[in-house]
Amino acid sequence: MSSFAFFRRLSKSFHDRPSHVKLILICTTVTGGGLLAYSDAGSSSAHQVAVTEKKKVVVLGTGWAATSFLKNLNNPKYEVQVVSPRNYFAFTPLLPSVTCGTVEARSIVEPVRNIAKKGVDVLFNEAECVKIDAENRKVYCRSNTNNNLNGKEEFVVDYDYLIIAVGANVNTFNTPGVVENCHFLKEVEDAQKIRRTVIDCFERANLPNISEEEKKRILHFAIVGGGPTGVEFAASLHDFVNEDMIKLYPGIKDLVKITLLEAGNHILSMFDKRITAFAEDKFQRDGIDVKTGSMVVKVTDKEISTKELKNGGEIKTIPYGMAVWSTGIGTRPFIKDFMSQIGQASRRALATDEWLRVEGCNNVYALGDCATINQRKVMEDIAAIFKKADKDNSGTLTVKEFQEVMNDICERYPQVELYLKNNQMRDVADLLKAAKGDVKKESIELNIEELKAALSKVDSQMKFLPATAQVASQQGTYLAKCFNRMENCEKNPEGPLRFRGEGRHRFKPFRYKHLGQFAPLGGEQTAAQLPGDWVSIGHSSQWLWYSVYASKQVSWRTRALVVSDWTRRFVFGRDSSRI
Amino acid sequence: MSSFAFFRRLSKSFHDRPSHVKLILICTTVTGGGLLAYSDAGSSSAHQVAVTEKKKVVVLGTGWAATSFLKNLNNPKYEVQVVSPRNYFAFTPLLPSVTCGTVEARSIVEPVRNIAKKGVDVLFNEAECVKIDAENRKVYCRSNTNNNLNGKEEFVVDYDYLIIAVGANVNTFNTPGVVENCHFLKEVEDAQKIRRTVIDCFERANLPNISEEEKKRILHFAIVGGGPTGVEFAASLHDFVNEDMIKLYPGIKDLVKITLLEAGNHILSMFDKRITAFAEDKFQRDGIDVKTGSMVVKVTDKEISTKELKNGGEIKTIPYGMAVWSTGIGTRPFIKDFMSQIGQASRRALATDEWLRVEGCNNVYALGDCATINQRKVMEDIAAIFKKADKDNSGTLTVKEFQEVMNDICERYPQVELYLKNNQMRDVADLLKAAKGDVKKESIELNIEELKAALSKVDSQMKFLPATAQVASQQGTYLAKCFNRMENCEKNPEGPLRFRGEGRHRFKPFRYKHLGQFAPLGGEQTAAQLPGDWVSIGHSSQWLWYSVYASKQVSWRTRALVVSDWTRRFVFGRDSSRI
Repeated sequence: MSSFAFFRRLSKSFHDRPSHVKLILICTTVTGGGLLAYSDAGSSSAHQVAVTEKKKVVVLGTGWAATSFLKNLNNPKYEVQVVSPRNYFAFTPLLPSVTCGTVEARSIVEPVRNIAKKGVDVLFNEAECVKIDAENRKVYCRSNTNNNLNGKEEFVVDYDYLIIAVGANVNTFNTPGVVENCHFLKEVEDAQKIRRTVIDCFERANLPNISEEEKKRILHFAIVGGGPTGVEFAASLHDFVNEDMIKLYPGIKDLVKITLLEAGNHILSMFDKRITAFAEDKFQRDGIDVKTGSMVVKVTDKEISTKELKNGGEIKTIPYGMAVWSTGIGTRPFIKDFMSQIGQASRRALATDEWLRVEGCNNVYALGDCATINQRKVMEDIAAIFKKADKDNSGTLTVKEFQEVMNDICERYPQVELYLKNNQMRDVADLLKAAKGDVKKESIELNIEELKAALSKVDSQMKFLPATAQVASQQGTYLAKCFNRMENCEKNPEGPLRFRGEGRHRFKPFRYKHLGQFAPLGGEQTAAQLPGDWVSIGHSSQWLWYSVYASKQVSWRTRALVVSDWTRRFVFGRDSSRI
Repeated sequence: MSSFAFFRRLSKSFHDRPSHVKLILICTTVTGGGLLAYSDAGSSSAHQVAVTEKKKVVVLGTGWAATSFLKNLNNPKYEVQVVSPRNYFAFTPLLPSVTCGTVEARSIVEPVRNIAKKGVDVLFNEAECVKIDAENRKVYCRSNTNNNLNGKEEFVVDYDYLIIAVGANVNTFNTPGVVENCHFLKEVEDAQKIRRTVIDCFERANLPNISEEEKKRILHFAIVGGGPTGVEFAASLHDFVNEDMIKLYPGIKDLVKITLLEAGNHILSMFDKRITAFAEDKFQRDGIDVKTGSMVVKVTDKEISTKELKNGGEIKTIPYGMAVWSTGIGTRPFIKDFMSQIGQASRRALATDEWLRVEGCNNVYALGDCATINQRKVMEDIAAIFKKADKDNSGTLTVKEFQEVMNDICERYPQVELYLKNNQMRDVADLLKAAKGDVKKESIELNIEELKAALSKVDSQMKFLPATAQVASQQGTYLAKCFNRMENCEKNPEGPLRFRGEGRHRFKPFRYKHLGQFAPLGGEQTAAQLPGDWVSIGHSSQWLWYSVYASKQVSWRTRALVVSDWTRRFVFGRDSSRI
């Protein structure tokens, strides 16, 4: 090969596969002369380069947490292997829109291979994790394609770090008949199935020789669970029926009924009371039947049985055509199995510490809906805190001594800060004053019992994080940043003081920043609860919703598609073809 | 209710449901005072108005033929009931594009309820026809929703006119294993399934511990049938793999193989030879393996067995990952059953006369892929023609006498016109001259035997119409126009002379006008065969293809969607999420 041809090929290679070439350059730089057996940019062995220094990170899942981790990981020292039954990320907050064709399923998904940062070695395998063996650092996986693979559909993956971000499955509370007869709304396929079923119901009710009563049954849409998903789906369905379907099926318009069943006293109970009241009011005007205090106890193929909590537990049966179940989340079986391995059998989700590390095993992280952060209580560590703060070993703490460790305390135990804020205390002196009574700030000195008394109510401020996309996404970003700076922080820890041990924690603990939450209520109206208890309801919030959801899309492609879907809906309405 | 409130309600009703109000007005006009029990524009009895004069037209199918019939029917004297298992019309020529995500499935479908002309009473039922009882004018149908309907999923529809436009199903030629293991490409669902399977194959080949050989098998895409569909699919798949998939799956790029199996000697044999040659050449350059003379005799889950017709019938087995079967069309079971009822058991498709009326029963029409026109031969009617033309009963025909009926002959027997054209004859005199030798035009006189001789070769020009969307669509339009003018033409027939009977035929017979055909070959290149044997190949034809397919869309909605899908593909590429 002449040198000209060589350069032409090199330049073509740069043009065709910039990411690979960049990868080579970075690898060469980072490994500092390590053997780099990279013979051809496109060869199948590209990912199997023997770079012994690389730590193997296995990520389970491609949801919000996993995706935001992949998106933010930029340290080429890791070799990442993602295992998930879905080869795409789905923008789940738009799933209720997909059920009614306001947005197309494909507009909210992005192949996971497009998401990872260029320069980081990411391999993806479409498979389900079936077992985690934390002791031997192995993950057992099984391909979920049902086709012939000569029995090779199982494989084992080794890891140095394991990141569990598999989300949760639906919680049926073991109600009989739910799995067999209800639709769920957790996956893209669920939304597509619901859409087909809604149109099915209209077509079935439109057949000849169906009695009026039977038509009413078929066109009765029951939604179980008055949380944000259930409410948004009810609203979307109402819009779909009233804006689009009744034009095409004018004969059966008056037979359609939507019922929202909620066991609690109110729908949207996690929102501000003004939002709950507005939603209940709007649904009443729209003709959506909101039944609170109605606990579903059984579902058959044509009827839902409810226990009316307000009427002394009376059992009622409601005939229905389609039922959607959206009440809370449960634990996936292999996570349950893993939890019993590591002594967490009694918990609902994987317990982690504030750095998202799974308690009871090393190098395993859990984030998103499958995990909960087990915030350490101040009271558990109170002796250690006292000892660290009491530098002169006098047996008493002065305000000055306490102030010196206050920042670390607030960082390590966020409930302290929250307590101060909620009790309108400006600083630590106020806290200690409350224990000692009205004495001068400088003369305060507390012994350990008095400190315990001062901090006794602090732990009541601890909150569990909600199982939302927002939390999962922030956790993913946090963890990626930790991984990016792992080596640096090993040398220069930036976390708070270790009260029980020596030195400092490597990283600051994860801290959730609530950016607000939406509850779309149909008819181009949305309720928004923003930070600082700011509530906004109406058309303006709907536009805020549009802009936030458009901006939060994972890629320019999905952004363009979602916006064009919205536009299309405004111009042409929703499609009712049963595909 | 005050009169103001009444008018306001009326105006609102006009605004909200213009189509219904128009329907009332038209009905009132047409029925001329007939009882019109239309109490409320939205009531469920709207479609069951007792208008005894209305003729009931039952249309089976929602494909090209049925849809173009519905689109063009504008006579409000008919009450139309459409029965089809699909509540939408699909623009089938874009199905190969859907298989690879160049166009989305939903962009090529339109709800059938949107298609019918306003003012015509059209009812749609999502059901399959299971039996036709032509004697009692009844059609037996069954709902295709698999859900609970209390056993009421079957119903019977009466008709005055029946229009059969159910298309065809796949013809497997009874090859063992095809139904179980192959994909087809006739319905939208087929295309979606193919898309998922292609991505499945890539994901499977990307799993660990799969041998190189097994990977090659999984990534071998076999297409059986070298017709326009098979060729277009092969080309689309090649583009999809090379433009999009190899970017995401760089490791397995070299393992992908596409094979096109064709039993004949050439692919695209119905096209001009230049197109066939270009296509075979282009596929070779692209690395698509075209195997002609290869007849598939058996398909198992992992292997296709072929009989190599060129090598003396040697049997070969080819391992494959996905197989698509696209060879010709077959007859649907209930059509087969109907054909044996009316004495057409030996035929491949429903035989109709030139007015699309099914032979052997009254008031039943068949069009599209499920029907063939049984063109009457001139030789069968030669005695009647001679008699009609010989006005002076002289036993001989002069040129003048023959010329007087020539227009009717050409209209009734299109093969005559074709014969004249193909033999470069200017008029009838040339034809008769050929029989009598070189004599003067005025002195020609033929007896019946001489006329027979003159016309003996005419019937060889008869052609079967291809089973294309173009034919079906033109037939639908033709039939709608006949139905629109049924009464008028009853009084003032506009068809040719009835040679065997008295008077004239009501309508002119159906005449197909070939507008050309495309064969997209991938890489933004398309071959086009236009009327007059004009052949165009390359990028310019691709743009012609884009514009023709955009303009032929059934609605502005699908047009906008298809064009935006094409744009999206240019900007972002195709999506590879497995949904």
